[in-house]
Amino acid sequence: MASSVIPKSVNPDLQKERDGASFNSEEFAAWWAGSEKELKFTRGVRDYLHKDVNLDEMLQIQNMSHEDINEFSIRTSIDAAKKLRRLQEERNPGGDEYWPNLYDNKVMWGLTPAGNPFGVMYVMLVKALQAQCTPEQYEEFGKRMEKFEICGTYAQTELGHGTYLRGLETRADFDPKTDEFVLNTPKISSYKFWPGGLGHSSNHCLIMAQLYINNESKGPHMFFIQVRDEETHEPLPGVHIGDIGKKMGFIGVNNGFLGLKNVRIPRTRMLMRHAKVNADGSYVSSPANVLTYFAMVRTRCVIAQNNALVLAGAATIATRYSAVRRQSPINPKEREPQILDHVTQQFKLFPEIATSLAHRLASDYLWKLYDATIDDIANGKYDRLPELHSLSCALKVTCSSDSAAGVERLRLACGGHGYLTSSNMSNLYVAATAACTYEGENTVLLLQIGRFLMKSWRSALSGAPLAPTVRYLSEVQKNPEFGTWTGTWENMVKAMEYTAAYKTRLAFKSLSNRLSRGESEGNAANQTGIEFTQAAELHGRAFIFSSFTTEVTGPNSKNRSAAFNRVLENLLELYLVKETLNQLSNLLRFINLTDTDLTRLQDRLETVLTKLRPDAVAIVDGFDFSDLQLNSTLGSFDGNAYERIFDAVLKNPMNQKLVPKSFHQYLKPFMKSNI
Amino acid sequence: MASSVIPKSVNPDLQKERDGASFNSEEFAAWWAGSEKELKFTRGVRDYLHKDVNLDEMLQIQNMSHEDINEFSIRTSIDAAKKLRRLQEERNPGGDEYWPNLYDNKVMWGLTPAGNPFGVMYVMLVKALQAQCTPEQYEEFGKRMEKFEICGTYAQTELGHGTYLRGLETRADFDPKTDEFVLNTPKISSYKFWPGGLGHSSNHCLIMAQLYINNESKGPHMFFIQVRDEETHEPLPGVHIGDIGKKMGFIGVNNGFLGLKNVRIPRTRMLMRHAKVNADGSYVSSPANVLTYFAMVRTRCVIAQNNALVLAGAATIATRYSAVRRQSPINPKEREPQILDHVTQQFKLFPEIATSLAHRLASDYLWKLYDATIDDIANGKYDRLPELHSLSCALKVTCSSDSAAGVERLRLACGGHGYLTSSNMSNLYVAATAACTYEGENTVLLLQIGRFLMKSWRSALSGAPLAPTVRYLSEVQKNPEFGTWTGTWENMVKAMEYTAAYKTRLAFKSLSNRLSRGESEGNAANQTGIEFTQAAELHGRAFIFSSFTTEVTGPNSKNRSAAFNRVLENLLELYLVKETLNQLSNLLRFINLTDTDLTRLQDRLETVLTKLRPDAVAIVDGFDFSDLQLNSTLGSFDGNAYERIFDAVLKNPMNQKLVPKSFHQYLKPFMKSNI
Repeated sequence: MASSVIPKSVNPDLQKERDGASFNSEEFAAWWAGSEKELKFTRGVRDYLHKDVNLDEMLQIQNMSHEDINEFSIRTSIDAAKKLRRLQEERNPGGDEYWPNLYDNKVMWGLTPAGNPFGVMYVMLVKALQAQCTPEQYEEFGKRMEKFEICGTYAQTELGHGTYLRGLETRADFDPKTDEFVLNTPKISSYKFWPGGLGHSSNHCLIMAQLYINNESKGPHMFFIQVRDEETHEPLPGVHIGDIGKKMGFIGVNNGFLGLKNVRIPRTRMLMRHAKVNADGSYVSSPANVLTYFAMVRTRCVIAQNNALVLAGAATIATRYSAVRRQSPINPKEREPQILDHVTQQFKLFPEIATSLAHRLASDYLWKLYDATIDDIANGKYDRLPELHSLSCALKVTCSSDSAAGVERLRLACGGHGYLTSSNMSNLYVAATAACTYEGENTVLLLQIGRFLMKSWRSALSGAPLAPTVRYLSEVQKNPEFGTWTGTWENMVKAMEYTAAYKTRLAFKSLSNRLSRGESEGNAANQTGIEFTQAAELHGRAFIFSSFTTEVTGPNSKNRSAAFNRVLENLLELYLVKETLNQLSNLLRFINLTDTDLTRLQDRLETVLTKLRPDAVAIVDGFDFSDLQLNSTLGSFDGNAYERIFDAVLKNPMNQKLVPKSFHQYLKPFMKSNI
Repeated sequence: MASSVIPKSVNPDLQKERDGASFNSEEFAAWWAGSEKELKFTRGVRDYLHKDVNLDEMLQIQNMSHEDINEFSIRTSIDAAKKLRRLQEERNPGGDEYWPNLYDNKVMWGLTPAGNPFGVMYVMLVKALQAQCTPEQYEEFGKRMEKFEICGTYAQTELGHGTYLRGLETRADFDPKTDEFVLNTPKISSYKFWPGGLGHSSNHCLIMAQLYINNESKGPHMFFIQVRDEETHEPLPGVHIGDIGKKMGFIGVNNGFLGLKNVRIPRTRMLMRHAKVNADGSYVSSPANVLTYFAMVRTRCVIAQNNALVLAGAATIATRYSAVRRQSPINPKEREPQILDHVTQQFKLFPEIATSLAHRLASDYLWKLYDATIDDIANGKYDRLPELHSLSCALKVTCSSDSAAGVERLRLACGGHGYLTSSNMSNLYVAATAACTYEGENTVLLLQIGRFLMKSWRSALSGAPLAPTVRYLSEVQKNPEFGTWTGTWENMVKAMEYTAAYKTRLAFKSLSNRLSRGESEGNAANQTGIEFTQAAELHGRAFIFSSFTTEVTGPNSKNRSAAFNRVLENLLELYLVKETLNQLSNLLRFINLTDTDLTRLQDRLETVLTKLRPDAVAIVDGFDFSDLQLNSTLGSFDGNAYERIFDAVLKNPMNQKLVPKSFHQYLKPFMKSNI
C-alpha cells in the first residue's frame, strides 16, 4: 500500500552521512555475509521472499488480540514456507538447500515478526530426530517431520521444572504386556509448558520423560508422540493441550501446555539411537549421557549468533534515527544538531555496534568448534565435548545478556519514540532478553561454567594439559605476575585473561576454604556461587576479547581494503576500551593502572567515538538489513522516521472511528453527573 | 469467580517462611505506610475499592486487542472514580480527601492495570492549572476540570521535539483584532504527540506553544483549549486528534496526537498567573521563568517515589515465588530446595528489596524539600529552586534507571514464568523503564545535573556557600584526602561522597582544559558529556547512601522495636555493600582499598544475604501489596503459583475452542501438499 505522507526520497540528513563515509559499506556487507557470493545469494532469496508482503499489516500486529496475532503468525509462516518450496522447485527441483534448509535461516527474519510457530520444529525437533532416531525411526516419522507432512515441537520444560532435567515429573512406564509406553503427567506441575508451537499448531511432539521399567527409573529419555488428529486437529484421547497465553515476546508462536493421562505409544517411539529398551524390558544405556543433551548445545550456538544479529538490527534502527532526529543546540543560536552529534548519544550507539561485531566473530569461532566436535562424535571421540559445552554456555550467556542490555540502551537512545511498538525496538528487546532464560537459564549456565573453571584450575595445578579456550589459566599459574599495563590491544586481551584467571583463583580459594572447613561439596559450591558466576562471566569476556582481536589484526586483514580495516580497527579499539572500563572494578583489583593510564583510557574512548562518528551510518548499512527485516518506523533505509510513524498511527484500528463506544457508555454519563 | 484448581489454603512453603521470621511484618507495614493510622486508612480504602473487581478479567487484559484494552481502561478508571466519589459522599460529603484527592494516590494501584487514561489529568493538568491560572481562570475552567465535569490532559511533547522546549513548533499567534490566539501545528513534526488520554478520552487540553505577538517570539507558554465537543465527543473544527497506537507499556491510556489548524481561542485562555498578554498586545513576562516548568519538578518527585514502589512490588512477586518454587538439589540426593536457598538467587532478590527501601527514603526527603520550596515560592523566595530541581532530577534518574534494571533482574529471577504476562513482571518493567524517558529523559537530566555540579564546584572554589545536598563538594575541597577506609557505614557514605566529588573534579578539569584550549562552552560541555553524566550519577548515589543511613541509624530508630531495627540494619548493610561493590571501578580509582578490604566486602555481602534469608518473605509482606495490586499469578499472598498460572491459562480466550481456524485454512492444506 503506497501512502501519501511518506516521501519517496531519502532524508537528506541520512544521505549526507552515506556520502561522507570513509569506506564502502558494500565491502562491509560482503564481509559480514561471509563473502560477496553469499551476500548476493542472500539478497536474491530475500527479494523473492519479500515480494507481496504487506508492510502496513506487519506494523499493526501489536494492535491485534492474542488470538488474531496467532492466526496471523500461522498464515505468514506457511506463506513463507510455500515461497521457499516454490523457490526450490524453480531453481533446483528435488534438492533441499532452499526448502526446508533456509526455513530456520536468518533470511527468514522479518517475515514472521510475531515469531514462527514452526521455528522450534526446524531449529530443534528435526535436528533432535536426526541425532537421536535409529535409521528405521527416522524413515518412519523423522522424514515426515522434515518434509512438513506432520508438524511438531520439542517439549522438555514443565510447569514445575525447567533447569533440572532429573527433576522432570512426566513419566513413561514400559508395559511389556502390550510392548508400549504409558505416558502420564501426574500433577499440575508436571504439565509440559512453554514449547513454541505446542499450543495450537503441532500434531506431534517429542517429549522428554522419565523412563520407568518395572517402576524403576532410568532417567530422562525422549519419546515421540502424536497429540492431535492429522485430519481434524482435535486433541487425541488423554491429551490435554492448549496455549499458555500472552508473553512479553514471541507473541505469535502459541507456546503451549500439554497434559497426558495414560497415553499409550508403541515401544518403538522411544528414540533409540543411543539408549534402548528391548521388548523383554531389558535396558541398554547410552554410550555417552551427554549425547541426550547435545541438541541444546547446537541451540546455544544458534542463540549466540542470533543475538548478535538482534543487537545489530537494533543498532541499525537507533543509528539511522539518530542521524535524522535533531534536538538541543550544542552551541546557543546554532541550529539543533543531529542527535548523533551529541557525544553522550554516540556513547550509547557506537559501543553496541562494536559489541554486535565482537559477538558475531566469537560465535563464528564457536560454530567452527561445533562442526569439528560433530566430526569427532561421528568417529566416537567425545573429549572435546566439555570444552564445547562450556564455551557454548559462556557465549550464550554473554551474547544474550549483553545484547538484551544493549538493545534496551539503544531503545532508550531513541527517546519516547523507542517506546512505540512501531519502532520495533521493544520487540527486539523481548526477543533478546528471552534468550537469557531459555535453553539453559543464564545463572545456571554460569554456575556450570564456574564448576568447569574450578575443574580446569585444579587440573592445571596438577600439571594436566588444558583445552585451548582455558589454556590461559595454566599460563597464569606459571607466570602469576601480569607485568606492566601498556594499553596495547594484545596487552588488553592479556589483562582480561589475567583478570578472569585471578577471579577463578579467588573462587577456587573460597571453595577450598569452605571444603576444608568441612562443608559438603554442594553447600560449599552454593556458598561460592556468586564468585563462580563472576569468574565465568570474565572467562566469556576474555574469549571475546581474543577472538575479536585475532580477526581484526590477524591474517584475514590482508583480504580487506585499508579503509575498511581502519573502520574495523576503530570498532575493536572501542570495544576493548569500553569493556575494559566496564570491568575496571575487577581489573583494578589485580592489575596496576596508574591515574594517567585511566585518564588515557577515557581519552581513547572519546577519541574513538569521534573517529567513528562519520562512518556510523555506513557501518549499520553494512549490516544489510532490509526495511521489512527491521520492521521499524524509525529505522527505514530512507530515514523518513516522522512520516512513517505518522503513517502507521493513522492506520491504527483505533483511529478508524472518531468517537469510542466508551464515551457514551461511561465517560459522558460520569462527567454529566459531576455538574 | 471462584476457581476449583486454586487451593484455598496458603502454600506450606510460604507459611513456613512467615512463621520463621525474626520480626513482625505488621510493624514494617506501619512504618512503610507512614504510621499505623495511615496503614489502617489505606487498607480500609483499598478494601472498599477492591470490592466487586473481577480478578480473572484483570489477568486476561494482555490478550485483548489494543482497542478493547483502551475501552476496558476507560471503564475501569471511571468505575474507580465513582467508587471514590461514593466513599466521599458516605464518609464526608462536601470534602475532597477521598474524591478527587485519592485518584492519583497509590491506593489506586491495581485498579487500572493497563494504566489510567485520566492519570495525567490529575497528576499534572489539575496541578498545572492550580499553579498557572489566575483566580478567574481557575474559577472558569480549572474547577470544572478538578470536578471532572470536563476531562483533559497536558500536551507538551511533539513528534519532533521532546527535550528541548524552546524548539517546540506549535505556535499561538495573538490576533488583536479579535482578541484571540490562533493555534497551529505547521508541520507533521509539530503535532503534539504522546500525552496520556489525549487520543480518545480528553475533550480539553493544556498545551505548550510558542507565543507570538506581531510575529515576534516570546517563548513557550501554556494555553487551555477545547479539542472535542462536550456532547458528541467529536473533534472540533481544525482539530486532528487520535491515538498513537500500541506502546511497550501503559497500553490502556490512549496516548494521543493532536494537530491544530487555525484553531482560535479567546486571549484569556492563555494561563496568565505569571506571564501576561494584554488586549492591546503588550506582554508582561513572568517574574521567574522556572515557574513555567515547575509542574515537571513535582512530577519528578512523584516518579522517584512511584518507581520505588514498582520495585517493591516486583520484589514481592519474585520473593514469594522463590519461596514456593523448588529446583536443583544443593546436595545430591537431598530434596530440591526452595530456590530462595540458592545464594545466587538471594543475590538477585535481596539487593532489590534493599534498593526499594533506599529509594523510598530518599524520595521522602525530596518531598520534604519540595514542600519547603513551595512555601518559599508563596513568599516570593526562589533561591532553593536550583537545588530542588537538581535533586529531583538526580532521584528521578537513579530511581527510574535502578528500578527498571532491578525489576528486570527480578523478572529474570522468576525464570521462564517471569516472561508470562500473567506474572505481571513485564508490565512492571515497562512501567519502570518508561520513567527513564518521560518528564526529562535521563541522560538530558544527568547533563543538567552535571552542569549544576560544575557551577557548584566553581562556587565552592571561590569560597561561596553551597546548598546542603552539594555541601560535601566544598568539604572535599577543604580536605582533599579521603583518609583511611574503615568500612563502617559512615565511612562508606563518606567514600561515596568523596568519589562523587573526585569525579566532579575530574569533569571540571576536563571542561576547563577544553575551554582553555579555546573550545566554545557548548562544544566543551558536549565533549565532556560522558564525564558529566558519570559525576551526576555518583552525586545521586551519594545522596541515597546518606539518607538511608540517617534513617536507619538516626533518632527515628528509637521509635522501632529492636527486632525490626535489626532487619533495617541488615538491609542498609546490604545496600551499602552491594552499591560499593557496583561502584568499585570509581572508588578504587580514588580510594585505597587493600585486597583484604575487598575480600572483606565480599564476605560481608555473603554474610548479610544469609542473615536476610529467613526474613525475606516477611519483609515483602511488609510492603503490604494486595493480590489485586500485584495482579500476578506468581506473587499472590497464598503462594499457589502453579495453580494460578494454570487457572489463568485455562481462561485464556484461545483455549475456548479446540481447533483454530488457521488449521483448516492454512496448515492442513500445506501439510497435505507435502505428502
